[in-house]
Amino acid sequence: MAKRAERRIDDQLEVSFEAENTPRPAKRAPRKQKRGKPATRGRTAKELATKQRDISVSEFFAKNRHLLGFDNPSKALLTTVREAVDNALDACEEAGVAPELLVEIVAEGEDRYRVIVQDNGPGIVRAQVPKIFGQLLYGSKFHTLKQARGQQGIGISAAGMYGMLTSGRPMRIATKTGPRQPAHYFEVRIDTHRNRPEILVDREVEWQCDHGTRIEITLAGTYKRGRHSVEGYLRQVAIANPHARIVFQPPSSGEEPAEPMLFERVTEELPPEPKEIKPHPYGVELGVLLKMLKASDTRNLRSFLQSEFSRVSARAADSILEIAELPERTRPAKLALEGAERLHRAMNEVKLMAPPTNCIVPIGEELLESALRQEVEADFHAVVSRAPAVYRGNPFLVEAGIAYGGDLPGDEPVSLFRYANRVPLLYQQSACAITKGVISIDWKSYQLSQARGALPAGPAVLIVHLASAWVPFTSESKEAIAHYPEILKEIRLALQECGRKLGQHINRRRREQAEGKKRSYIQKYIPHIGIALQEILKLSDPQRDKTVETLTDILERSRTPVTGRK
Amino acid sequence: MAKRAERRIDDQLEVSFEAENTPRPAKRAPRKQKRGKPATRGRTAKELATKQRDISVSEFFAKNRHLLGFDNPSKALLTTVREAVDNALDACEEAGVAPELLVEIVAEGEDRYRVIVQDNGPGIVRAQVPKIFGQLLYGSKFHTLKQARGQQGIGISAAGMYGMLTSGRPMRIATKTGPRQPAHYFEVRIDTHRNRPEILVDREVEWQCDHGTRIEITLAGTYKRGRHSVEGYLRQVAIANPHARIVFQPPSSGEEPAEPMLFERVTEELPPEPKEIKPHPYGVELGVLLKMLKASDTRNLRSFLQSEFSRVSARAADSILEIAELPERTRPAKLALEGAERLHRAMNEVKLMAPPTNCIVPIGEELLESALRQEVEADFHAVVSRAPAVYRGNPFLVEAGIAYGGDLPGDEPVSLFRYANRVPLLYQQSACAITKGVISIDWKSYQLSQARGALPAGPAVLIVHLASAWVPFTSESKEAIAHYPEILKEIRLALQECGRKLGQHINRRRREQAEGKKRSYIQKYIPHIGIALQEILKLSDPQRDKTVETLTDILERSRTPVTGRK
Repeated sequence: MAKRAERRIDDQLEVSFEAENTPRPAKRAPRKQKRGKPATRGRTAKELATKQRDISVSEFFAKNRHLLGFDNPSKALLTTVREAVDNALDACEEAGVAPELLVEIVAEGEDRYRVIVQDNGPGIVRAQVPKIFGQLLYGSKFHTLKQARGQQGIGISAAGMYGMLTSGRPMRIATKTGPRQPAHYFEVRIDTHRNRPEILVDREVEWQCDHGTRIEITLAGTYKRGRHSVEGYLRQVAIANPHARIVFQPPSSGEEPAEPMLFERVTEELPPEPKEIKPHPYGVELGVLLKMLKASDTRNLRSFLQSEFSRVSARAADSILEIAELPERTRPAKLALEGAERLHRAMNEVKLMAPPTNCIVPIGEELLESALRQEVEADFHAVVSRAPAVYRGNPFLVEAGIAYGGDLPGDEPVSLFRYANRVPLLYQQSACAITKGVISIDWKSYQLSQARGALPAGPAVLIVHLASAWVPFTSESKEAIAHYPEILKEIRLALQECGRKLGQHINRRRREQAEGKKRSYIQKYIPHIGIALQEILKLSDPQRDKTVETLTDILERSRTPVTGRK
Repeated sequence: MAKRAERRIDDQLEVSFEAENTPRPAKRAPRKQKRGKPATRGRTAKELATKQRDISVSEFFAKNRHLLGFDNPSKALLTTVREAVDNALDACEEAGVAPELLVEIVAEGEDRYRVIVQDNGPGIVRAQVPKIFGQLLYGSKFHTLKQARGQQGIGISAAGMYGMLTSGRPMRIATKTGPRQPAHYFEVRIDTHRNRPEILVDREVEWQCDHGTRIEITLAGTYKRGRHSVEGYLRQVAIANPHARIVFQPPSSGEEPAEPMLFERVTEELPPEPKEIKPHPYGVELGVLLKMLKASDTRNLRSFLQSEFSRVSARAADSILEIAELPERTRPAKLALEGAERLHRAMNEVKLMAPPTNCIVPIGEELLESALRQEVEADFHAVVSRAPAVYRGNPFLVEAGIAYGGDLPGDEPVSLFRYANRVPLLYQQSACAITKGVISIDWKSYQLSQARGALPAGPAVLIVHLASAWVPFTSESKEAIAHYPEILKEIRLALQECGRKLGQHINRRRREQAEGKKRSYIQKYIPHIGIALQEILKLSDPQRDKTVETLTDILERSRTPVTGRK
């Protein structure tokens, strides 16, 4: 165990330089290196300084590419498809175009594939193409508070970087912004040393579409079937994006070309557009507030509060300033640290409305159910779309769905489809708040079997969708959602609602089966009862038949099972 | 389920532009948006382009700071201490100075602390100070292949950024590079918008030490006791760094100042210095090879291979070039992609020695055991230091230790101390390869109880240390090691060796106890046997005493229990 220091080491502990004061010098140095062998290396600060240098963010992620989802060849291929599809869907929606996607994978020799993703989106203006695809941390969504698939401006350029790293081939991009515009073709790679795009080819080409973008990445990959397959992934995309139409061309496995697959849309209508919101005072940290104060061109604190934040009325602004004991006419840029701290505390003390929720858009119960019915064949489907809630100032909402019965395999744990902002999450299931939410529910009370601490088992597919202006992922590869208590609570509530519907369905089924058994049993005996009554009561044949008919009728009426599904 | 597309969608699938060929135009566009309601938003590519912008890496990590270990106030405080201690130890070792550290934590109001870490290292030259502390991704170790605590050039500046974000206070740094040099005092914060340092104060101060660096960060934090405490962390640091002396001043909890603690070193000698190595051909990817070829100023491929890689002799270089069918006189910078691919394949086909292992330095069995004995009181201590091995071209080695018995709590799972390059890993235990290695071993055969899929239980502390030129962490916060099979195997082998020693110890203990019982039993009866023999054989009293003495002596000799511990 650590020994208590025998004496107070005053000379060391007294060294102290407060931020606001002149540093007081140490009385004495930390004990000098006077024992032990003389150091043989003993580099000086000057020598060490020569080794210090900038690390570009692309060098960093090239070396740490498992952080972005490029851990191994099969995951790398799927991550590449995912990043390209995310971008394509985001672009189409922003332009108000119902997405039409083509995803094609071409085998190009052992462990090497070409991934092609083409959309009918608005296209990209020529000057932006190199940066969007050839630079990490470049994009339009990072500084915006509204729901989107992309958040970070890393994904697609990281995929291109991985392709270059493993195949030596640059990314190819063709894009066209309108029917009368020329199409541009680029070959781009990242100069990882500077995190800047290097343009290898840039020319106009003929392309007969109205508008759209097509990218091609060649990479070291493995094409897998099953749970982590491109096909399985696209099926999950189709469920959460009922307005998208996706054609998938798998790689041919022999001489025969593989059959293309179609994931058809179930609606022509685009989801409503999420609106950008301002930050809510409750979610803002002191350092961010300081930056906002400094950058603001408002003339006084009152208008600063009203115009830079959501849900701050004139009255709320007055209350905040009163609590903070700050004059409303103070110029934001002039406010000192101490005043900003008071303002920050007051902002968290005053009562405010929750942030507006039009920055997020649910899939909606109707569409989610249609899409689920189309993609997952089963006897029973139920969905729930919860009202928005808030975590750390960020609005979010949870939707859940369940498909049960039919040909779904019955003895295994249920399949769990996790989504964030309509994007399927395929890896790190056990680290995800959604999984934790599912496990924490007592599924036995909803007629599913469940081992302790495990997913429920049975012929079912569970779906959970989290939509938020800012999804708290546990890593850059966006595979799992962090365990915020507010989020967990909403996940549980949504699942419990689905669970109740499922329990009712299963109970009704069981009742129906029991009823059916009883009825067929009684039906079998009604003619015999008729004959017995005829003998006892001396009935005529018509009287007997009438009695049998009446008995059957009574049985029908009293025991008609419920057959409607919803 | 996804429907098979009814017809081959030839018009779409034929669009194809190979990297090397002129792109062939698409015959027809993806289906146009002709159905559905007219889009009400319909942003054009031009409008969308105005929103695209650079995201600085510090903005990125400020928003995603949970990725760096700043998830919550208690973890943030510990992460800050850790980053500062890592840097201090690395600096001292590089300069050949036996580290003397002061770690002090001062409470500054509710949930706000000042963290101070001071070392006797070589100091930092003035021009480097702002960048090292006020810029993410700046450092000396990222581009170097040798064992170090720091890898990424993120840690300490991220801690400063977190401090600024939550307290509004910049980082304070004082540093001195030699007895006759002036000490410099800085106040620095990150301009997150540009990821560049902003210098608020820069002046000379008096400081009576020979050389060293002292930093202060004020931050929102929580000071915890127990497993994730600063004290517990420093104790773990002391075990893996037997050459370091650390004084810790905890925050005072009332009016009384808290007692400082001393973690004393057990050796004056510094560990040998790890040597920088060149990459090994087996671990190099095509894209990296292309960059190396382009950047190399060697005059032909033969000397390129010999001078840029480790373990490539003249003979090995010839074999590689022969397999690749490349003339040795080719200028590296002129080699085309296709040739580079052949070279890359050949590099992986030829048989080469494993990479040199002097880039990593074990703690060593002797020192690890001394440190373990000093910091963990127990009856039994055993350690194992394995020979180096290689994963993906990176040399690494595993050391393990166990402390057993004494006052360690007996009914709980063992405490597991995980280390990477002498740095304790405190979070994400269940995600770590070390934990997986421990769990995968059958500890019952080493006399510890163990539930299925769990850590063993018993009065023991387990230690595992991974040293490598490149530690594959699962996240930037460096909390868990990725599951490489080669690493797992070495962890298991080291633990099994420790386990065998432990099993022998426990068995010996049990035998000793059984022997002791038997002996005391027999001893009790020897006098009686003496009396009985005297009666039967008519012995004199001296004869009887002689017989008793002889019997005792025989018993002693035959049943002397083993008492040595090692």
